[in-house]
Amino acid sequence: MARPLGEFEIIEQIKKALPKKAQGVVCGPQDDAAVLETPSGMVMLATCDVLVQGVHFADEALENPWQLGTKAAAVNISDIAAMGGEPAYLLISLGLPSNISPSFIDDLYKGLGQTGARFGASVAGGNISKSPGQLFIDVFCIGFAHPTQVLYRNGAKTGDVVAVSGTPGDSAAGLNFLLNKQTTQLDAAMQRLVRAHQTPEPKVALGRILAQSKVVNAALDISDGIVSDLGHICESSGLGAKIFAEKLPLSHEALTLAGVLNCDAIDWALYGGEDYELLFTTAPKDFGHLKEKVKKELGLELTIIGEMTAENKTVSVVDADGKIRTSKSRGWD
Amino acid sequence: MARPLGEFEIIEQIKKALPKKAQGVVCGPQDDAAVLETPSGMVMLATCDVLVQGVHFADEALENPWQLGTKAAAVNISDIAAMGGEPAYLLISLGLPSNISPSFIDDLYKGLGQTGARFGASVAGGNISKSPGQLFIDVFCIGFAHPTQVLYRNGAKTGDVVAVSGTPGDSAAGLNFLLNKQTTQLDAAMQRLVRAHQTPEPKVALGRILAQSKVVNAALDISDGIVSDLGHICESSGLGAKIFAEKLPLSHEALTLAGVLNCDAIDWALYGGEDYELLFTTAPKDFGHLKEKVKKELGLELTIIGEMTAENKTVSVVDADGKIRTSKSRGWD
Repeated sequence: MARPLGEFEIIEQIKKALPKKAQGVVCGPQDDAAVLETPSGMVMLATCDVLVQGVHFADEALENPWQLGTKAAAVNISDIAAMGGEPAYLLISLGLPSNISPSFIDDLYKGLGQTGARFGASVAGGNISKSPGQLFIDVFCIGFAHPTQVLYRNGAKTGDVVAVSGTPGDSAAGLNFLLNKQTTQLDAAMQRLVRAHQTPEPKVALGRILAQSKVVNAALDISDGIVSDLGHICESSGLGAKIFAEKLPLSHEALTLAGVLNCDAIDWALYGGEDYELLFTTAPKDFGHLKEKVKKELGLELTIIGEMTAENKTVSVVDADGKIRTSKSRGWD
Repeated sequence: MARPLGEFEIIEQIKKALPKKAQGVVCGPQDDAAVLETPSGMVMLATCDVLVQGVHFADEALENPWQLGTKAAAVNISDIAAMGGEPAYLLISLGLPSNISPSFIDDLYKGLGQTGARFGASVAGGNISKSPGQLFIDVFCIGFAHPTQVLYRNGAKTGDVVAVSGTPGDSAAGLNFLLNKQTTQLDAAMQRLVRAHQTPEPKVALGRILAQSKVVNAALDISDGIVSDLGHICESSGLGAKIFAEKLPLSHEALTLAGVLNCDAIDWALYGGEDYELLFTTAPKDFGHLKEKVKKELGLELTIIGEMTAENKTVSVVDADGKIRTSKSRGWD
């Protein structure tokens, strides 16, 4: 793309792309470590997730570094959202091949910084390294929560309903659209699916409501697909789960595209992953109030898609006629 | 090395290598994010640093994963030490090529976990990704400090003495020994140099003493070499600095090896880097007491090697005869 950049040129580029003063950051990227305020009495949530070229994105994605930055920030913020926390800080560790241009760094950090800022997380520092092979963008996110308002995976109870936000499967639909561009036209509907895949929306406000409700027994974000992610809850809680395939809230857009491509939109929701919607369990009696509150305050839909069972660690998908469609974990490994 | 490991096998391997219960970790690697206690009223220090195969270590280093883990933890903990903080948590983001064996993961995490534990930092979580090319070990470290006891880079004053701990240059000497194994015998002296390179010792207790003293004006750890690192202090503080080459506290072992290899041990100290000793500035009147206290409490030597000047952002190295040896930054970029 351009002549190799020196470390200091890269740092200058990054400084230009980020806001001058960030909330809570006593000292930012210019010292050995970022110095950050802590709200007393809170617990700290810390997570990291990497995007590696050739594993999490194709070479062509390098043409849109803003989008890469947006997604790298979003998938980390989503992990804080899934625990009911408020995102606070991002640290970015970059592995850069030699052919990276200043505008690439600029756009990447704009994506990281803008997405962080939208959800209350300041880019507070990081590290830059050469990478002899692929680009990697490793994001470390710190958030805070009240100790009594954290959503864990291990609290699901037998008889809980399993619910999801939004329309899972849209991200996989967007990916399938991109892989089959020649067959379909990019209208507004397809654009929505592509956005769901390329710039997913972490559900921070939803996570806070679920955590504050104190009736949610287990929760996580859908990163690997419903079957695999619900499998994590089953594993942690020592339970099993049933998913009713006909109850999956598939979007009209995903169903349309599945028809054109002769695919099954149910499989996109069950195994596709990268939706970053929240999946949670709660007692049947508590669901109605939650659904109403979330609809009213956030305009988001919650849908019951299954139930927790005593059948140890098995996730079964049941069809409308009661037949078991599948009964093992097939999500992304 | 072996058949490809699945993600869950890798996680199981990691769980086995780490202690069951870690200080302050409310919830560890098993959820979306680690949940960590925060001491109220403290500021949080957060840093990350990566080791990339082919950039920070050679392929042969893969034969000693324990050592790789140790070094990856140490270089991050050193950044917390350089700010006067107490290390608290490590998150590990791994990029793994397909040929990694269970025993590799086990030894790597033992190195990470043991080094963390020695300095008070619990491995609290992380992420595992495939890497199509090189192995990378990305470590995020969180520490805490009293807001009034943080060592920044930007507080140096004209007339301050510049001092270092230990014997910088040993790490570069150790590297040079390894690169020239055939010419020299591995006796106890050479082993000490190799250890300085392969398993450097972060100076956490020293950082705490310097921070608590409230007389240290600027500090950092020597990761890039004295000239380059002192350059960071000059840059941040808007000052210049002089280093007196004959005052550099070179070790007997480094001088011996430099003689054998016909190298200049002064250059190893000035430009070698990776010593992870601390470099700091303080008023001349305050140095004596600090030196005594550190000698008495930690058995470590502090040595004055130069002074801060008003000459904007230039680091000059002066020889014994007063001639300027060099006057620009030549450290690792």
